Amino acid sequence: MIAATPEPPYHAVIFTSQRTEGDQGYAAMAEHMVALARQQPGFLGVESVRDGEGFGITVSYWRDEASIAAWKAHAEHAVAQRLGRERWYGAFALRVCRVERAALPEARG
Amino acid sequence: MIAATPEPPYHAVIFTSQRTEGDQGYAAMAEHMVALARQQPGFLGVESVRDGEGFGITVSYWRDEASIAAWKAHAEHAVAQRLGRERWYGAFALRVCRVERAALPEARG
Repeated sequence: MIAATPEPPYHAVIFTSQRTEGDQGYAAMAEHMVALARQQPGFLGVESVRDGEGFGITVSYWRDEASIAAWKAHAEHAVAQRLGRERWYGAFALRVCRVERAALPEARG
Repeated sequence: MIAATPEPPYHAVIFTSQRTEGDQGYAAMAEHMVALARQQPGFLGVESVRDGEGFGITVSYWRDEASIAAWKAHAEHAVAQRLGRERWYGAFALRVCRVERAALPEARG
């Protein structure tokens, strides 16, 4: 569940959100969006967690700003973003970062 | 629970971790570390979530690299880092980023 990202620099999108009550189609769309993101050029990985109170953090990692911009503009993702604003999230924050250094887990196998 | 960070640029530390089984003093130390972090120069906010399987993401926000370095070197935090490696985390990743742009929730009320 820890993303096996390459050596920095690369970019990260930190998406913090509070879900509204009820599913309202969210779970299926969220799963589909992760699957779709994985197919995009420049996608490097994703880490995501949500607690029992509906508070969640998803961090997606990308090669560069161009790949983030392309994913933002993806037609299916644009629909999901709209539904997110209208229906699924009571509040959210989005931060776009440049990852400058990282310490990843060593292989323990 | 969404951190009220200022306008970018600022820095973020993304800490992704998998907890080991059992508490082993973790919960009390985690709470103390957040309280202590809030008192540090350059601290801007923190967002943290862990799911029922022990997978968690904590993102802390800082004014600059110097404040991150000072917090890393803080004596009590250094003890917590050592216990984290030895006892509390099965695996973890740490990424240090420069936040370049952000969209935060509007005040709703």
